[in-house]
Amino acid sequence: MEVFEIDPKLKSDTFPVADIGLCRLLLMNDSRFPWLILVPQRSGVAEVHDLSPLDQTMLTFETVTVSENLKRLTGCHKINVAALGNQVRQLHMHVIARFTEDAAWPNPVWGSGPAAPYEKDAAETFIANFKAGFVDRN
Amino acid sequence: MEVFEIDPKLKSDTFPVADIGLCRLLLMNDSRFPWLILVPQRSGVAEVHDLSPLDQTMLTFETVTVSENLKRLTGCHKINVAALGNQVRQLHMHVIARFTEDAAWPNPVWGSGPAAPYEKDAAETFIANFKAGFVDRN
Repeated sequence: MEVFEIDPKLKSDTFPVADIGLCRLLLMNDSRFPWLILVPQRSGVAEVHDLSPLDQTMLTFETVTVSENLKRLTGCHKINVAALGNQVRQLHMHVIARFTEDAAWPNPVWGSGPAAPYEKDAAETFIANFKAGFVDRN
Repeated sequence: MEVFEIDPKLKSDTFPVADIGLCRLLLMNDSRFPWLILVPQRSGVAEVHDLSPLDQTMLTFETVTVSENLKRLTGCHKINVAALGNQVRQLHMHVIARFTEDAAWPNPVWGSGPAAPYEKDAAETFIANFKAGFVDRN
């Protein structure tokens, strides 16, 4: 069995947040959008339907839990949830807080121009706030 | 309790395929991409996390079943799965068959130019083939 590793592009584009069960949770390094990514810790899986039924259910549960916490933390208008994988094959689930005044609204965030990297302290603060809410509620 | 109705924009952009359990299944009228949409038949729900846990699991099961069948039917390179809802609030899950030579690859399909409506027979044929595979396997 292969050892699970995060895809190098995902790794370089994100900050690690936590291991939350099935998934490694990452924060996209783009301060324009509060944007988390769940990566199921399974090797060689590209599609949700390639996961076992139990893992599918776990991924759904973890995606929903992250979504609720992100909505509570940010007060966003909409959550966008997506598993695309056209550029990075490793299965990963985007959970993005969207605001009607954000840089891409009402379009999807992908292809909406270059990322605006976080100031280092800002990412750490976001992650700390996210984890505080996550632990308290779940 | 409100009566469930498909959002008027979703309705005008799609062909009905089937009721598959929790969800109404629709075919997007854009022949550039084999593109199905699942709409949970629940009123007033905009986010996956607003569904009950049982409905979340049903939505996952139905999304995965539709994804597998669409991949088998089309031989696509990747399935894209997404619940965005920035333009149509009613919760709906996109399941899109992507090819490395399609009109938007490797970008998402949204915002990739105007839809190319199906010739009527082509949509009916696609739906018939999809349903045949769906019934046989599930």
